[in-house]
Amino acid sequence: MSFLMDHMTWMEFNEKKEESVVILPIGSTEQHGPHLPLSVDTVIAKEFSIALAKQINGMVAPTLSYGYKSQPLSGGGPLFPGTIDLNGETLIKLVEDILCELVKDGVKKILVLNAHFENEAFVLEAIDLVSNKYKDKVTIVETNWWDPMPEDVIDKVFDEVKFPGWAFEHAAITETSLMLYFAEELVHMDRMVDTKGATPCAYHKYPIEKSTIPESGVLATARTSTAEKGKIIVDSVLKELVSIVNEAF
Amino acid sequence: MSFLMDHMTWMEFNEKKEESVVILPIGSTEQHGPHLPLSVDTVIAKEFSIALAKQINGMVAPTLSYGYKSQPLSGGGPLFPGTIDLNGETLIKLVEDILCELVKDGVKKILVLNAHFENEAFVLEAIDLVSNKYKDKVTIVETNWWDPMPEDVIDKVFDEVKFPGWAFEHAAITETSLMLYFAEELVHMDRMVDTKGATPCAYHKYPIEKSTIPESGVLATARTSTAEKGKIIVDSVLKELVSIVNEAF
Amino acid sequence: MSFLMDHMTWMEFNEKKEESVVILPIGSTEQHGPHLPLSVDTVIAKEFSIALAKQINGMVAPTLSYGYKSQPLSGGGPLFPGTIDLNGETLIKLVEDILCELVKDGVKKILVLNAHFENEAFVLEAIDLVSNKYKDKVTIVETNWWDPMPEDVIDKVFDEVKFPGWAFEHAAITETSLMLYFAEELVHMDRMVDTKGATPCAYHKYPIEKSTIPESGVLATARTSTAEKGKIIVDSVLKELVSIVNEAF
Amino acid sequence: MSFLMDHMTWMEFNEKKEESVVILPIGSTEQHGPHLPLSVDTVIAKEFSIALAKQINGMVAPTLSYGYKSQPLSGGGPLFPGTIDLNGETLIKLVEDILCELVKDGVKKILVLNAHFENEAFVLEAIDLVSNKYKDKVTIVETNWWDPMPEDVIDKVFDEVKFPGWAFEHAAITETSLMLYFAEELVHMDRMVDTKGATPCAYHKYPIEKSTIPESGVLATARTSTAEKGKIIVDSVLKELVSIVNEAF
Amino acid sequence: MSFLMDHMTWMEFNEKKEESVVILPIGSTEQHGPHLPLSVDTVIAKEFSIALAKQINGMVAPTLSYGYKSQPLSGGGPLFPGTIDLNGETLIKLVEDILCELVKDGVKKILVLNAHFENEAFVLEAIDLVSNKYKDKVTIVETNWWDPMPEDVIDKVFDEVKFPGWAFEHAAITETSLMLYFAEELVHMDRMVDTKGATPCAYHKYPIEKSTIPESGVLATARTSTAEKGKIIVDSVLKELVSIVNEAF
Amino acid sequence: MSFLMDHMTWMEFNEKKEESVVILPIGSTEQHGPHLPLSVDTVIAKEFSIALAKQINGMVAPTLSYGYKSQPLSGGGPLFPGTIDLNGETLIKLVEDILCELVKDGVKKILVLNAHFENEAFVLEAIDLVSNKYKDKVTIVETNWWDPMPEDVIDKVFDEVKFPGWAFEHAAITETSLMLYFAEELVHMDRMVDTKGATPCAYHKYPIEKSTIPESGVLATARTSTAEKGKIIVDSVLKELVSIVNEAF
Repeated sequence: MSFLMDHMTWMEFNEKKEESVVILPIGSTEQHGPHLPLSVDTVIAKEFSIALAKQINGMVAPTLSYGYKSQPLSGGGPLFPGTIDLNGETLIKLVEDILCELVKDGVKKILVLNAHFENEAFVLEAIDLVSNKYKDKVTIVETNWWDPMPEDVIDKVFDEVKFPGWAFEHAAITETSLMLYFAEELVHMDRMVDTKGATPCAYHKYPIEKSTIPESGVLATARTSTAEKGKIIVDSVLKELVSIVNEAF
Repeated sequence: MSFLMDHMTWMEFNEKKEESVVILPIGSTEQHGPHLPLSVDTVIAKEFSIALAKQINGMVAPTLSYGYKSQPLSGGGPLFPGTIDLNGETLIKLVEDILCELVKDGVKKILVLNAHFENEAFVLEAIDLVSNKYKDKVTIVETNWWDPMPEDVIDKVFDEVKFPGWAFEHAAITETSLMLYFAEELVHMDRMVDTKGATPCAYHKYPIEKSTIPESGVLATARTSTAEKGKIIVDSVLKELVSIVNEAF
Repeated sequence: MSFLMDHMTWMEFNEKKEESVVILPIGSTEQHGPHLPLSVDTVIAKEFSIALAKQINGMVAPTLSYGYKSQPLSGGGPLFPGTIDLNGETLIKLVEDILCELVKDGVKKILVLNAHFENEAFVLEAIDLVSNKYKDKVTIVETNWWDPMPEDVIDKVFDEVKFPGWAFEHAAITETSLMLYFAEELVHMDRMVDTKGATPCAYHKYPIEKSTIPESGVLATARTSTAEKGKIIVDSVLKELVSIVNEAF
Repeated sequence: MSFLMDHMTWMEFNEKKEESVVILPIGSTEQHGPHLPLSVDTVIAKEFSIALAKQINGMVAPTLSYGYKSQPLSGGGPLFPGTIDLNGETLIKLVEDILCELVKDGVKKILVLNAHFENEAFVLEAIDLVSNKYKDKVTIVETNWWDPMPEDVIDKVFDEVKFPGWAFEHAAITETSLMLYFAEELVHMDRMVDTKGATPCAYHKYPIEKSTIPESGVLATARTSTAEKGKIIVDSVLKELVSIVNEAF
Repeated sequence: MSFLMDHMTWMEFNEKKEESVVILPIGSTEQHGPHLPLSVDTVIAKEFSIALAKQINGMVAPTLSYGYKSQPLSGGGPLFPGTIDLNGETLIKLVEDILCELVKDGVKKILVLNAHFENEAFVLEAIDLVSNKYKDKVTIVETNWWDPMPEDVIDKVFDEVKFPGWAFEHAAITETSLMLYFAEELVHMDRMVDTKGATPCAYHKYPIEKSTIPESGVLATARTSTAEKGKIIVDSVLKELVSIVNEAF
Repeated sequence: MSFLMDHMTWMEFNEKKEESVVILPIGSTEQHGPHLPLSVDTVIAKEFSIALAKQINGMVAPTLSYGYKSQPLSGGGPLFPGTIDLNGETLIKLVEDILCELVKDGVKKILVLNAHFENEAFVLEAIDLVSNKYKDKVTIVETNWWDPMPEDVIDKVFDEVKFPGWAFEHAAITETSLMLYFAEELVHMDRMVDTKGATPCAYHKYPIEKSTIPESGVLATARTSTAEKGKIIVDSVLKELVSIVNEAF
């Protein structure tokens, strides 16, 4: 039997719903440079969720493929064609409705697994609204795949290149390595641009100007990315996610 | 090159965006009886969209996997576990945001392809709001996969069983046949229940009572479903969709 | 004593509120061709409600005179002057507030009687939200006047002209006959245009083009309309509505 | 030809729309003591509008029969059964949509005529939003029927009873006299209670307590009401309304 | 210990929260002529609240410095630079959230003290929504500082100038006297313009025209304003506010 | 002349509005341990804004004293009494309205200065909506006071204690030092608790549990805080803010 709700009948879902953790993966449709597809965050959120579900006998709800507005210094921003952003209010309502429906169906444990930096505040707002409504009827945990990643894995992954901070890890080594591991067929290493990376900026300016970020949309170099590094990340993060599940629910 | 935005880089999307039709498939997460998965509408919307994109050199935006509230007499209703419904306002905002972003990116032709009966009024509301905002900057067409299906195909598909009307064609012959054609691995013909079908009712009653629909969630029999019938539907509908595209844009 | 809340004092309402069915008629302000007034749906909704209230000792709440957006192929669309459309969100909130207030007042049985095709999805959304809030405290039934109409009545009414389907029955035989029966003084039979009718279309296109519908705003011919046919419809539908009330509450 | 949009065809409306003032009457569904119906504000708003339309060759849009929340010291408050209140946001959206539609239809002069004390702030908010959107494309004027009433008329109407202020003139002399003039058949003078009236209060307290207002719902005595006084009010106010129209448009 | 929540630690707040009245002052940022600052309403709301808190051992929540839209004939309107208006929906949500949070913290008595004429309807809407949600868990009282002011104080304050009514008392004698008493350093008596005052108008017209009000923004003369008159107002109103608190909670 | 809009007349504001930068300070009402008041973020946002305004001849708009929901691991969370949180939608609308009004008044340069960690995503959403509406008519810059702080200042401030990261710098050394510098009278150093600090956590869990954070509400020790350190921070940050203003506008 599959761990994807997409593949399950309602009767299969019904049997597992009270005991199992339901994982809701949240991605985005966002530019990821010339060598990665628009679906990077969606693929990573979904694949991490499936891998986790297998280990904890969980269920994976359909992935959200659209996320909150891409910011210039963490995703390239809205001026790149193909980046399809939701307003904050829309994302709040979308996550809120889905969580409420899961609770009404009898689900008691939900893990929201996010892979798009800019989503988090709005996803947490949705969770807060749902939690205030249903109180102890449901436990909801939210994390980003990079949050539980151990320090020593960062050292391993950034063996040649300096870690630029998570905001700049956009279309860079971690995401490229994860995509090589999860969906190699969607990666075009030959088109990879060895960008000098974006320059940090201590403020946000509107109207957003395209000139503040590299033309390619890559915020830090993806050089040295490999499927092996992807596997290292996945293995270490999965182990932590399993711990979180054991601890939180 | 893929026709799925999910698989494209922003540069690939950029090249095609002004000339190509972008197709937005909308499905649902909804019970479809004991023999079909929760993703039936999502799979059908997405597969029709890919097939159409191939013929018209279009692009398929990421499919919406959650839709408007399932109604008892067209989807079984909210009391079946696994049916995850959005509020009307949420679906309106979700579709509105995505369409606006496509227009801002420079897309001029959008086809919204719906596969969940209950979505339509809210999807049209979103399109209307976007069209009022952008006027002649974009042409948006909306259709359900069953709308352009020719009369004679209905006769072919319902060769043994009487056509129960589109609302009742839920987890029944057309959807089962389409799933056998598009994603046979997700169909469990051995679990199919030969239901007597739901009884039509001239009114809606709230609170919704589960007793008004067959326990299995199947609103009309799926007996006589085959992948061949699925192919007949797909071929005929695709031909019509191509005509619509040629006529409307 | 009147059956209209409009005519009742609060003390009269107070006495009946717990036992009686409150009927909420919903119409629209929408073009209905050169021979019918903008208030056709409102008049029909209200008159059916009064007639029903008399038979079941019900009460009729003030009619909603503005409804959801007129669609080209079921009402002529927004481009006809005099068609005054509400946004979906507005209609949802309007119906939701009124129903909530009736429940707070102690009403336990509500029938929403709709006469404008395009209203239904949004009215049902409002009812669903209210029902989720108040659960078993109130039973709410919704129907359109044409839903419970028996097949044989259609045959009687369409004795010369072929029945074009309910969406096209706009300013056509059924509505004209009902208006002749309910409010003859508002009908101008001499201005009636014997339109060839609108052409069915398998999709919705935006921006809406006026050219897709007959210039008169009539979607199917009203020829052969009579007050007698109006009476036949009213008598048959009323009988069914009484049955619905007996069955549902 | 009628002055009511309700009675006009779209073609009749079309001919007058650019030159004529469209009057939108706004009432409420609210308790008005034992001798007056729930529709007092709606009847008065509508009848004033019709009378004005006749004098200025205007058009009367369908009356809004539901208004903002009744306050204890100007309408008796929400605890009287039969008082059906809208939330502020709902009334804003409702008026906003209707005004926008009139403007889109080509109407250039709109008069909103209010008869329910509590509506005004929310109606003005709607008008402000529409005016900011359409700017010089439309002139919108709002008034309550009592605003332009000359001082000397108050003296004539309150010949025996002291004028209690407009907030307390609820189900009292002016409204009763107007109803006797406009719709005598809906007035039950025999059931009139000669209340001592409500006691003014310098603050609002929530939860609202029913004890703060007379049990009958009448906030000031209706004694000495006559149809003649109604006529005096109507004649004087109409004259002022015509002046406002001449001055403002 | 201070009476301002602004100055208190959470532990100090915690000790008083259940017994004390929490006062929420609401002002505005609005033009007040050439001799008064934009913060007049905010200063007055806050100072009255502090003075009251001292007498009743209450606590003053942070003052709201932005209010609802300034109307031409009660505040000069939106065309004066420096007037920063909130939309109605925003003010409703803002007050609603703050009140809900106070209730969740365990506060049982709240007094909302308003100093901006145009705020009241929206503030009451917020209070109504909160009161419906929490019912008997909290008592909320709302008043404007001028509401409880005794008649004889008006006579004392308007010894030379005729009282123009509260709407026109904008940047005029009462507000100027209160500012001289509360914050003399913010008053520029030398810049005072002895305006003839605005002309009353029986209707609202949109788009708003600046010409309808005096160029200075002063709606009635401030001549004869003194700190002593300010003190008279404060002393008399405070006494009434203490009575209200004793009576209402 | 003051730099606070609160202290300016509309005429003073009018003269400077087009050339000057308007600074909007945003704080919160949030627990800050036993030694600091609820207004820490508000005081810091306002004082930084005034200091900056003096250097760039700017104007400071009234400070927002209520902010977005306090999170357990950056502010202690909602379970501490005295923490008064706004919903995300409310904060978005509040900031959006104020910015729109400034733009309508003719302001062309706005700096939003935030001092509450949790506000940022919602404030940026508001700015984005306003910027999309007014485009090049206004330049809006947003920063948190800690964003432009140079690395070497952190070293100076954390001379004895290890820097715990910005999220944990709640009621700790930087905020306490800033309060000692800006408003010493509101700081109770004698009540300071030398907490061991909160434990980092790689995920968010709902319902929020109070046990996850130190009972005092202090997330990291405030030991070694001094007014001098406050001055060091202010001087260095101000210099950077001036650079930002010069660069961005």
